[in-house]
This record gives sequence, C-alpha cells and structure tokens, in this order.
Amino acid sequence: MRQLKVSKKIEQYLDKRKTLVDKALKRFMPQPSGLAGIVIRAMDYSLFAGGKRMRPILCIAGAEAVAESADDVLPVACAIELIHTYSLIHDDLPVMDNDDLRRGKPTNHKVFGEAVALLAGDGLLTMAFNLMAGYGAEKKVAKKALLRVIDLIASAAGYKGMVGGQVVDITYEGKEPDPVVVEYIHRHKTGALIAASVTAGTILAGGNEDEVKSINRYGQQIGLAFQIADDILNIEGDRGVLGKGIGSDKERGKITYPSVFGIAESKNIQKQLIDHAIESLERFDNRADTLRDLARYVIKRKA
Amino acid sequence: MRQLKVSKKIEQYLDKRKTLVDKALKRFMPQPSGLAGIVIRAMDYSLFAGGKRMRPILCIAGAEAVAESADDVLPVACAIELIHTYSLIHDDLPVMDNDDLRRGKPTNHKVFGEAVALLAGDGLLTMAFNLMAGYGAEKKVAKKALLRVIDLIASAAGYKGMVGGQVVDITYEGKEPDPVVVEYIHRHKTGALIAASVTAGTILAGGNEDEVKSINRYGQQIGLAFQIADDILNIEGDRGVLGKGIGSDKERGKITYPSVFGIAESKNIQKQLIDHAIESLERFDNRADTLRDLARYVIKRKA
Repeated sequence: MRQLKVSKKIEQYLDKRKTLVDKALKRFMPQPSGLAGIVIRAMDYSLFAGGKRMRPILCIAGAEAVAESADDVLPVACAIELIHTYSLIHDDLPVMDNDDLRRGKPTNHKVFGEAVALLAGDGLLTMAFNLMAGYGAEKKVAKKALLRVIDLIASAAGYKGMVGGQVVDITYEGKEPDPVVVEYIHRHKTGALIAASVTAGTILAGGNEDEVKSINRYGQQIGLAFQIADDILNIEGDRGVLGKGIGSDKERGKITYPSVFGIAESKNIQKQLIDHAIESLERFDNRADTLRDLARYVIKRKA
Repeated sequence: MRQLKVSKKIEQYLDKRKTLVDKALKRFMPQPSGLAGIVIRAMDYSLFAGGKRMRPILCIAGAEAVAESADDVLPVACAIELIHTYSLIHDDLPVMDNDDLRRGKPTNHKVFGEAVALLAGDGLLTMAFNLMAGYGAEKKVAKKALLRVIDLIASAAGYKGMVGGQVVDITYEGKEPDPVVVEYIHRHKTGALIAASVTAGTILAGGNEDEVKSINRYGQQIGLAFQIADDILNIEGDRGVLGKGIGSDKERGKITYPSVFGIAESKNIQKQLIDHAIESLERFDNRADTLRDLARYVIKRKA
C-alpha cells in the first residue's frame, strides 16, 4: 500500500516537472525559418518525439534537494535534454546502431535523411552550450558555478563520458560479454550524463562541496542502474510501451548486463546500486525525498 | 618592395603563433589510453594533420589589438581549432562531402572508419567547451567575459553559424548558382567562426564594446573573403600545395562565388571585403597592424 502511494507521488512529480521542462524547451527552441530552416525542423522533431525528460527532471530534483526553488536551473536542465537528444540522433544513424524506430516514431535520418540528421545532432549539441553560457548574461546567475557546470556537462558528454562509452559500445559489438567492458560502456554512455544532470542542479542551487559530492555519488549509482533497467526492458519489456523492438540488443550482439550476468543477477546488481544511491543521500533532510523516490522509480519504470 | 616586406613579416608572425598554438594543443590533448583510446587517437589524427591554425591565430591577434599579452586566450584559441577540426571531420564523411583526402592525407573516416570518425568529431566539439569552461576555474579569468565568449562561439558553430551554412551547402548542391544562397553559405559555414575567433580574443583581452563591435565587423569581412579565396584556390590553386583535388567544387555542383559571379568579379568582391575589413579597424592604433596584415594575407595565401 505504502509502495503504491510512493509510486503515485513520484509519477505525479514526474508529470508536473515534465510539463515544466516541455514548456521551457518550446520557449528556447527557435522558429524553423530561413534557408537553414530544415535543420531546425529536424532538431525540433527529435526533441519533441516523446522523451521522458528524465535528465532535466533529475537536474531540477538535484537543485530542490538543497534549495526552495529550482526555477533557475531550467536553461541548464533543458540544455542537458538537447545533449541527450543529439546523442540519440547520432546513435540511431546507419553508421552507428542503424535504428529505424525510436519511441515508436521513425528516427531522425529516416525522416530528414542522414546528412540533415547528422547536422541536427551537431546543432542540438552546440545549442546546448549556447543555452547554458547565454544564461550567464543574467545578473542573478553565479558565473563561477555556471562555468563549473558547463565543464562538468561537457566532460559527461565527451570522450570522458558519452562519446567514450559509445565508441566502446560499437567497437565491442559482437565480442565476448565482459563485465569490465559492460560496466565501462554503461557508466560512460548513460551514467555520466545522468550523474552530471543531478549534480549540475545541486551546484547551481548553491549546494556545498560535501553535498555536491554526495549527490554526484547518488547520480553515478542511479545512472548505471538506469541503463541496466534499459537492458532488462529490452528483454522483458512491452513493445507497445517501449516503442521499439524487444530483443534488439541480443540480435545485434550488444554487450549488456543480462548478457554478462544473466537477468536475476542483473536485477540484484540494480537493487544494490539503488540502495547505495539512497545511502549517499544520508546527509540530506526530507527535501531529498524526491531523489530517494526517483532512485526507486528508475528500476521500476516500464519504458 | 614594401609589399614583399609586409608579406614576410606576416609569414613570420604566422609561424611563431602557429608554434605557440601547436604546443598548447599538444598540452591540452589527452593521452589515448583506456578502452576508448581509439577515439582520442582519431581526434588527435585530424587535429595534427597540418592545419594552418588560422582561427586560433586570429583569436590571439584579436587580443593583441587591445592588450599587451595574449597568453590568456590560448585555451579559447585552441578550443576554436578543435571546433574547426570537428567540422572538417563531419564534412568529409561519405554522407556529407564524401572526401577521401584532406591536406594531402586520408580523411578521418578513411583511417578510423565512419563510426569512430563521427564520434571523434563529436568528441572534439564537446572537448572545446570543456577547454573553455574549465579555464574558468582559474582565478585571473573574467568569468562574465568567458561566458559571453562561450555563447558567441557556440552560436558561430551551431545552427546560426556553421551548422546552418553546411545544411544549406548540402541541400543546394547541384542547384542553380544564386548570389543570396552563396553568401549565406559562406558567411555561415566559414565566416561565422572566423568572426567569432577574432572577436573572442578582443572580448577576453578586455576590449570595450566599441572595439568589440569593430573587430567583429572586421571578422565578418575577412571571414567571407577567406571562403571566396578558398573557392578561387579550388580553381586556380596548386594541387601539391593544397593537398586536395583542383576543380572538385565544380565537379560536385557546389555553389561558389566563381560559379555565381565568375572569377574576375569574385576577386573584386574579395578586394572590397578586405578594404572594408581594414576600414573597420580605424579606431585602433598600430597594435592592430597584425590584423591589417592578416586581412591582406587572407586573399594572397596559396593554401
């Protein structure tokens, strides 16, 4: 019964924050006009193709854990969603994962062609930094914290994070499942940006160094758990809810937690990660309850 | 005789600053180690494939026009070269311009494969923001100016600049030569980042608003002239010096200044742009002489 209430509360929270993020994203996106309008349409297409906005919501929740209001983190939260969307567009390209469907809709290159899709990804990645740095022109923003956050997010997106994870993901496709490799891929490809999202919120909201460290540890754990949950959904999930093929990882020879550890042990690892994530929040009062609930939600979600 | 001396002076200046930039780039680049080492090797390959470092040098010269020393702009100057290199790697991909050679060497995807090349581009673009924002941790850096510069460079690289220019470039390939379209392509694809380079230097070195505006106008003019010079070199250039095929633009149906205006008129436009660029520097003393010489050099270079 309590479990049910928690899950309803967090779903309501996710709905509310998603609406907030969607509105802000609409406000930040330019109109697709001029000679280059098609690339803006392509950016827009993938940005509003049904994302859960998990990363921006984590950024907001990371701010709420140390401050009353999280309104000030919206430009950064949205920038992170732009980066996440760019990574999906590039990952789906024929030269990478060659996916035709994403969230039940044709992938970007299926609609706009490969060249425009590639450029739409480049455009979203670049615009993310625009959004973050441009926000520094506002008086109230702590410039040093903002620069630190831009650095953190660039690290999480680059060769130390997502790009590094993706390169290992594609170069190890079809190879022998290996626990070191799969942890590397998941921590870099997915975990790094999720950890950076929640940490960025805490930094921007003025969290102290101890708080920032704890939240970052929390983010690392749920980030890895999030990707393991994705691996499991790829086997046990509902095609209609997921909007993509079931079993596609296996077909493709992707190294996943279930392929290395089996499903039961993957679920164990996941649970341990969530327990550790919640332990990392020890020093926080009930303002971090949302983060605690989000951690539990990460491995319970259906899509 | 005077002309000869000027051109020798500027060539010496370019040599010296290039050495400075190359050293800094080597210092900033990580060692290619770990599971994702191959993507760092790929980033490194294109970054040290013989670039002239024109944009970082312009950034330095933009600082020198208003300050004694330009040492403080090096991280930003190098970041711009990373962005320029990323754009070359993505432009060369089969799905874009499909080029096998760049500066006389096999292009990135010819050596590392398309997937790794795509990721190397993504890695360089992201690392550029890392380099710039990370630099904000140093005490002496003016944080507000740095955030403004990051915003400016992101704009120049994104859909308002390079990405916008490239999308028009590829969508208009093979179409009727059009003066509005070719100016759009050149100003966005090449001009925007060149203008941002020199302007960033002036902002970081503490130039006032009038100075920043003048330098930006200067940058816009030489940026367009630079690309017209490239168009002309693609027809009249020396294959051995250029390291790529002569006449490739025409074969490909690229819209260029010569294809729209003819060679003689393109050279006229070029000269007018350089004259206007030098006029934009009226308010500056002899510390801007390098920028004046660089403007003349832009249309005299052989590669």
